Amino acid sequence: MTLAEKLALANRILYDQGVVDGFGHVSARCDEASDRFLLARNMAPGLVTPDDILTFDLDGNALDAQGRRVYLERFIHGEIYRARADVQAVVHSHSPSVIPFAATGTPLRPLYHMSGFLGSGSVLFEIRDVAGNTDLLIRDPALGRALAGALGSHSTVLMRGHGSTVVGTSLEQAVYRAIYAETNARLQSQAIALGEVTYLNEQEAAMAAATNDTQLARTWELWARRVIERG
Amino acid sequence: MTLAEKLALANRILYDQGVVDGFGHVSARCDEASDRFLLARNMAPGLVTPDDILTFDLDGNALDAQGRRVYLERFIHGEIYRARADVQAVVHSHSPSVIPFAATGTPLRPLYHMSGFLGSGSVLFEIRDVAGNTDLLIRDPALGRALAGALGSHSTVLMRGHGSTVVGTSLEQAVYRAIYAETNARLQSQAIALGEVTYLNEQEAAMAAATNDTQLARTWELWARRVIERG
Amino acid sequence: MTLAEKLALANRILYDQGVVDGFGHVSARCDEASDRFLLARNMAPGLVTPDDILTFDLDGNALDAQGRRVYLERFIHGEIYRARADVQAVVHSHSPSVIPFAATGTPLRPLYHMSGFLGSGSVLFEIRDVAGNTDLLIRDPALGRALAGALGSHSTVLMRGHGSTVVGTSLEQAVYRAIYAETNARLQSQAIALGEVTYLNEQEAAMAAATNDTQLARTWELWARRVIERG
Amino acid sequence: MTLAEKLALANRILYDQGVVDGFGHVSARCDEASDRFLLARNMAPGLVTPDDILTFDLDGNALDAQGRRVYLERFIHGEIYRARADVQAVVHSHSPSVIPFAATGTPLRPLYHMSGFLGSGSVLFEIRDVAGNTDLLIRDPALGRALAGALGSHSTVLMRGHGSTVVGTSLEQAVYRAIYAETNARLQSQAIALGEVTYLNEQEAAMAAATNDTQLARTWELWARRVIERG
Repeated sequence: MTLAEKLALANRILYDQGVVDGFGHVSARCDEASDRFLLARNMAPGLVTPDDILTFDLDGNALDAQGRRVYLERFIHGEIYRARADVQAVVHSHSPSVIPFAATGTPLRPLYHMSGFLGSGSVLFEIRDVAGNTDLLIRDPALGRALAGALGSHSTVLMRGHGSTVVGTSLEQAVYRAIYAETNARLQSQAIALGEVTYLNEQEAAMAAATNDTQLARTWELWARRVIERG
Repeated sequence: MTLAEKLALANRILYDQGVVDGFGHVSARCDEASDRFLLARNMAPGLVTPDDILTFDLDGNALDAQGRRVYLERFIHGEIYRARADVQAVVHSHSPSVIPFAATGTPLRPLYHMSGFLGSGSVLFEIRDVAGNTDLLIRDPALGRALAGALGSHSTVLMRGHGSTVVGTSLEQAVYRAIYAETNARLQSQAIALGEVTYLNEQEAAMAAATNDTQLARTWELWARRVIERG
Repeated sequence: MTLAEKLALANRILYDQGVVDGFGHVSARCDEASDRFLLARNMAPGLVTPDDILTFDLDGNALDAQGRRVYLERFIHGEIYRARADVQAVVHSHSPSVIPFAATGTPLRPLYHMSGFLGSGSVLFEIRDVAGNTDLLIRDPALGRALAGALGSHSTVLMRGHGSTVVGTSLEQAVYRAIYAETNARLQSQAIALGEVTYLNEQEAAMAAATNDTQLARTWELWARRVIERG
Repeated sequence: MTLAEKLALANRILYDQGVVDGFGHVSARCDEASDRFLLARNMAPGLVTPDDILTFDLDGNALDAQGRRVYLERFIHGEIYRARADVQAVVHSHSPSVIPFAATGTPLRPLYHMSGFLGSGSVLFEIRDVAGNTDLLIRDPALGRALAGALGSHSTVLMRGHGSTVVGTSLEQAVYRAIYAETNARLQSQAIALGEVTYLNEQEAAMAAATNDTQLARTWELWARRVIERG
């Protein structure tokens, strides 16, 4: 499977799992060129095929668009790849259960070992602080850099009034994290309503995340099988 | 695709996306005659085909019913088209997550850019104020005019004890807004339970709405594909 | 379509709509004999076919079981038919959103016109008051009579620690009410969390219920089509 | 049907019913050797076939793995079978609605007769108390013994920061309990938000559990039919 084929599959997995709807996107850094990344043309992620995958440089220029429309927010990807040499894949979504956390400035914190990658909690990007009133989109390199700055060395940044961005050291890991960020958000809301929550502490979170990284193939196989069987 | 075919598709999209169930309806103003609109005969929206689409005048008279039963609430559509020259499509639904907002008089407010069309918030129609105790339906022109009056220049009016009505400058936009009004309601409830919510301010909302209007084809294609593939 | 065929369809509709799971049952009074009713043999309602439908007398005796196992709680049906000459169909379920209302003694109240049949609110049956500690099932005629007494002239009785029972003057109406009791419960919980709820008053509820009764064929057609197409 | 075939089916039922996702596992004690149990190789439970079922001794050694990878947490099963002669099947899952209860130390309590097996409430296992900071997994026999100790004679143990484990005297019963523990958790959260909850008392719970045990074939048939028809 080529990286473009795997990225198309990742798009469809994220749609099938409810992380993306008509919007949201996932990219992967090119294996052979660390200053290039793959990202679909402007379209609903659930419909992406390998032929829809374009190559971008880190400034967000498409190298092979041939007139095809590109995502307004491709700068999220380019600027994070520039700032974070360890990152090989990026998921930006409006994952539903995460939106209320972004809107209220409540950090996602790991409720169980599956979301150990959240560590001491997600960070927040408030676009008003850097650009005043906007349409909330990361539509230029400066906003991309500001978002990458807010992300810092974390795995997950919430974007107030918008959504979230999750990164990984592999495409499988970024997809896993995007899916479990959504799940953790849903369960965290329920736990907060029930009473005082005991979150994983930082050491537990780090150890759990390391263990989960040895099991990524298991979930990828399951999720991939679902979308492949459905055509 | 004719407007009747597109409207039949809109009916099925709204059912597939959970905005309408056995009830609710969507109409479109005729391209060639601004004092005419298309609306299905009285039936569950999820089953509507192009042959079920009738033409109405703004008084709610069906011009080609040929004995087929019509919706009791066709006056919602006629009176809004009369009052709002900018409106080309109207969705009336009992979209579930919106009902609790209508029942408590809580305005829908935009939690994220996808629902920028909500602007400074939805308005409320209290039928008791204009007609006392009723079956809550908009079953005559006077009630239709009262509802249109409450809607004013907004995109969304909540109807206490009943549902909501959303308008658009195109069928695609009205469908988009009905779907994201439902989504925003669900997420807004969750956010209110989490803490103090930072909604989009009016300028953010307006800018986000303008951007989203450039992306309507993307979601329409996704939603249409789903219902067409399912037959 | 015979009444047995229609009742089998009602079983599958209630399963498809999430009102019943592996448990719950729906009955219909016989057209030709008001002291007889039809009810499936002991099995999951989602799997019922016309051949699984048995005839019972009001004492809960199966007249044609031929060794087939019957529901422990058939007395719910018999005793309600005995007490309520107007009732032609009964649905007993553990409809999920209704369970928390039964467990907390919170009446279901109509949030919107679709559930006008709830009138001034559901009533509650506390089995402890009549029989002390039990397995909570209506497993004999005396408990059936006590439940029918609690139901009185209402449409809906909640059963603490157990579920609910809904009646109708036709099978279509009872199915409609069971589905919208579940929907109303879900939305009422959400509304209570949002703020002070304006329920339909008794006059609104009665008028809305009367209107809805003229539209029952619309939802029945939609729900039936779904289960028939799925085989 | 062999026990391995039945266990493969149980895996797929638990996935179809939302109790397990890519993780979680179910085991059954061998009929012919009480010191052996069957458990799938390390894989997503929704994909398990009879060929993926391995045999383990109570120390967690696979007797027929032939190089296939095994679950890190097989010690949950072995140590519970060792401690509880009455247990014939064990389900370990991250069943979603249960996670918030584990994270807040809120016991599951029976809201309705379907979950009478919860008795006076679930017990809690806090791994920090026995092992300090860990990745939260039951990855050795000592942790397995500690978990079995926390379970005691109960049916259900919540595991803080992790999930839950449910046991049964048959595979059908353990599957039933795992599914209704999830359902009860979801409904219990909703009930707590509504007001003061009247739970089943211990006698009611015991009587309801005894009755439900006579109906296990009904739900097993329904759940099995669903996954078999879907292939």
